[in-house]
Amino acid sequence: MSRRAEQVPDLVARARDGESRAVARLISLVEDESPLLREVMAALAPYGSRARVVGITGSPGVGKSTSTNALVRELRAAGRRVGVLAVDPSSPFSGGALLGDRVRMGDHALDEGVYIRSMAARGHLGGLAWTTPQALRVLDAAGFDVVLIETVGVGQSEVEVAGLADTTVVLLAPGLGDGIQAAKAGILEIGDLYVVNKADRDGADQVRRDLRSMLKLAERTEGAWRPPVLATVAQSGRGVAEVVAALDDHHAWLSEHGELERRRVRRARDEIEAIALTALRAGWAGVHGATDLDVLAAAVVGGETDPYAAADRLLESAPRG
Amino acid sequence: MSRRAEQVPDLVARARDGESRAVARLISLVEDESPLLREVMAALAPYGSRARVVGITGSPGVGKSTSTNALVRELRAAGRRVGVLAVDPSSPFSGGALLGDRVRMGDHALDEGVYIRSMAARGHLGGLAWTTPQALRVLDAAGFDVVLIETVGVGQSEVEVAGLADTTVVLLAPGLGDGIQAAKAGILEIGDLYVVNKADRDGADQVRRDLRSMLKLAERTEGAWRPPVLATVAQSGRGVAEVVAALDDHHAWLSEHGELERRRVRRARDEIEAIALTALRAGWAGVHGATDLDVLAAAVVGGETDPYAAADRLLESAPRG
Repeated sequence: MSRRAEQVPDLVARARDGESRAVARLISLVEDESPLLREVMAALAPYGSRARVVGITGSPGVGKSTSTNALVRELRAAGRRVGVLAVDPSSPFSGGALLGDRVRMGDHALDEGVYIRSMAARGHLGGLAWTTPQALRVLDAAGFDVVLIETVGVGQSEVEVAGLADTTVVLLAPGLGDGIQAAKAGILEIGDLYVVNKADRDGADQVRRDLRSMLKLAERTEGAWRPPVLATVAQSGRGVAEVVAALDDHHAWLSEHGELERRRVRRARDEIEAIALTALRAGWAGVHGATDLDVLAAAVVGGETDPYAAADRLLESAPRG
Repeated sequence: MSRRAEQVPDLVARARDGESRAVARLISLVEDESPLLREVMAALAPYGSRARVVGITGSPGVGKSTSTNALVRELRAAGRRVGVLAVDPSSPFSGGALLGDRVRMGDHALDEGVYIRSMAARGHLGGLAWTTPQALRVLDAAGFDVVLIETVGVGQSEVEVAGLADTTVVLLAPGLGDGIQAAKAGILEIGDLYVVNKADRDGADQVRRDLRSMLKLAERTEGAWRPPVLATVAQSGRGVAEVVAALDDHHAWLSEHGELERRRVRRARDEIEAIALTALRAGWAGVHGATDLDVLAAAVVGGETDPYAAADRLLESAPRG
């Protein structure tokens, strides 16, 4: 126990020195929900809130991985250290991450300024991994200047990534039923930056035009950030420098308007709340051997009580954290 | 106060006698989160868990409203009383329900065996209205044999409707970028019944074939329900009787396998939990004037504490229900 407990400060020190293996080990402790998790989080706490967090989302086929790789190259060229969390949806076919980290690393495998990690989305359909915010804390504390969180835009993951990121990049591409893409309620509300990838293909200009008019219709309040609509060919790197410039613009805008701090406080709120609610749920499931919640639910179905009265009783029975 | 308090038993009695105005009033109390809400729920409790709940979801353009209307007609022809909750996503353009109830009622306006209600989705992106489960309780207690919950298949509403329904019908149609429709992680997991509408159009057979092969690949465990893939032309009523027959088949299967009870207990669990968590959140936001959660979140952002320690403190401060 004392030997294991001593590992955490050592791992954190090595991660802060830029050692990829220590970063990997810390994220594994997070992903496995290790008993050391709380100690890891406490040790990381003083070193957080420095990295810029960029969410990248889009439908299957828009070129997310290619775009992420192109962004990593561009950011590295400017000397910035880049971490990537690639969150794959829990597929009914694989039940886990579809793409191994070695495949993902590709041309960055020998670059110590880049760390790429695939995370399996677990728990709920299309959502981010429960542990993504904690993995982000590891990369932040390890001194990465930018953390890219890449997530497929299905279900609720795109909304969740927007809650986690300072800047959310929504990728689109021509020829993918873009009417439906754009009609999705979420897309117009979550993007800080829209990028039409595969801009050398037919229909790309139309996608940009359609998107611009929809954004205009959905325009947010006076003085709000107006999301630019850019075009890239991620495969060749065309337009990627402009995306990095737009990311910098948005970051500057966030700082000037106090919005960066607000987003980070909101992110911490969500994280604390999720941890607290998980602890409560575990408590509800555990009391008296059988689960309190199941007994109450059966009483509601049986017409013996109503859901409000049942909720009152649940809260009365809840153990303190 | 005593006069208002006496209204609830009277309203419930009248709703159970089939009076549409009383049903409408009770759902309004629910939607407005009236102070009488708890009393309403307590009064309804003994009369629940009788209605069959059918969720209907699909992308914009598949013909959801036409299909819902066709199903209502078919169910009425068989003498069943039908309630409809049409949940429209909170649109950035309208901020509310897009279609009024009078428009929705259409050919059923004079039929006392049908009650149709549009509900605005509030609170979270693309989700069901927070009050949908409670509105469902009103219709259930009022003696409707079937309640159809129609929701647009964007964001998380399709997952939520599957959690609420005994049977979930996923609608598709040719010519709507069906590759993307089918690739959406959720669609293969939530349907108990798939209906390709507009089956008289080009490509409908292809959609059915593609869907069948994807369902085969995603096949669930041994002995599980195998979702049929049907075809309709809702406009003319073609194939709608077969959909009603398949709904009956699924209901019989659920009953035989004890799955109906399990789904209803799970639904009650979710409902109780949502009410309890909302009460807790309200408590966290309210203590000490300033919000506890905000203070803790700022401390996490400032590196003074970590999210786990913050969650512990939050739970310690939480008032009992």
